[in-house]
Amino acid sequence: MAERFLEDFAVGQTYSSGRVRVDAEEIKLFARTFDPQPFHLDEEAARSTFFHGLAASGWHTAALTMKLLVESELKLAGGIVGAGGELSWERPVRPGDELHLHTEVLEIRPSRSNPHQGRIKLRTTTLNQDEKPVQTTMMNLVVQRRSNAGPAAE
Amino acid sequence: MAERFLEDFAVGQTYSSGRVRVDAEEIKLFARTFDPQPFHLDEEAARSTFFHGLAASGWHTAALTMKLLVESELKLAGGIVGAGGELSWERPVRPGDELHLHTEVLEIRPSRSNPHQGRIKLRTTTLNQDEKPVQTTMMNLVVQRRSNAGPAAE
Repeated sequence: MAERFLEDFAVGQTYSSGRVRVDAEEIKLFARTFDPQPFHLDEEAARSTFFHGLAASGWHTAALTMKLLVESELKLAGGIVGAGGELSWERPVRPGDELHLHTEVLEIRPSRSNPHQGRIKLRTTTLNQDEKPVQTTMMNLVVQRRSNAGPAAE
Repeated sequence: MAERFLEDFAVGQTYSSGRVRVDAEEIKLFARTFDPQPFHLDEEAARSTFFHGLAASGWHTAALTMKLLVESELKLAGGIVGAGGELSWERPVRPGDELHLHTEVLEIRPSRSNPHQGRIKLRTTTLNQDEKPVQTTMMNLVVQRRSNAGPAAE
């Protein structure tokens, strides 16, 4: 599939993704490395917490969302480079959940200072196997313009 | 150290953290699992990209920030449970960078519907060894109230 430049996007375009399944061992491994709290580490300890059972770290969900986005049909020239945005977690991700994405283009802005690039704002909803949202992000990405033949410079 | 409840916070309080060093192998390992793009995977391939060299995935920086926050002096009763917020990446994290946090309490809001909990909004700046910000988050956390003797219910 050809790579996409800023000129290839339009507000309202949508993109889907593949699916990724999360198991208990992966939830605990991520948590041991990055988010060592009882509700992400141990089924038994998790029962008496806010989550009432083992749940993935929100940052694990965010990282899995990035994996799905990188592997999705959104093939950005120069890669997916995030500047920042908003993020919310709607419900826990549980062992055995299978996640996929629904992404929509919200805004397209050429850069005023750099003719070779611009930004797009994407809303990416991460859904579980019941089509319930577990995470929503609205992120600004740096995107190359088609006129730019060489590597982008900030 | 005693755990902190909603009543223990005041706007303007600040918290520091320990430090974590990031090396090239960790950057590549995270990228292979969650963000497989050339500028996170390979020094040589990264040179001709937006980042002009190997850089950590922003989600890796976010995950390391969570690790530092969990291990910091911010000891929340019930754990650190994020609802969402804003996030921005100010500059790349490079191999060998050593990160630490500066966290400030921005808002404190008791829940209107649940007398056992509330929310605090924290601004957490992730700084490198040169005291330059690499990431800033403004996140809302669910926090238990001291009156709550048992596990929190949403």
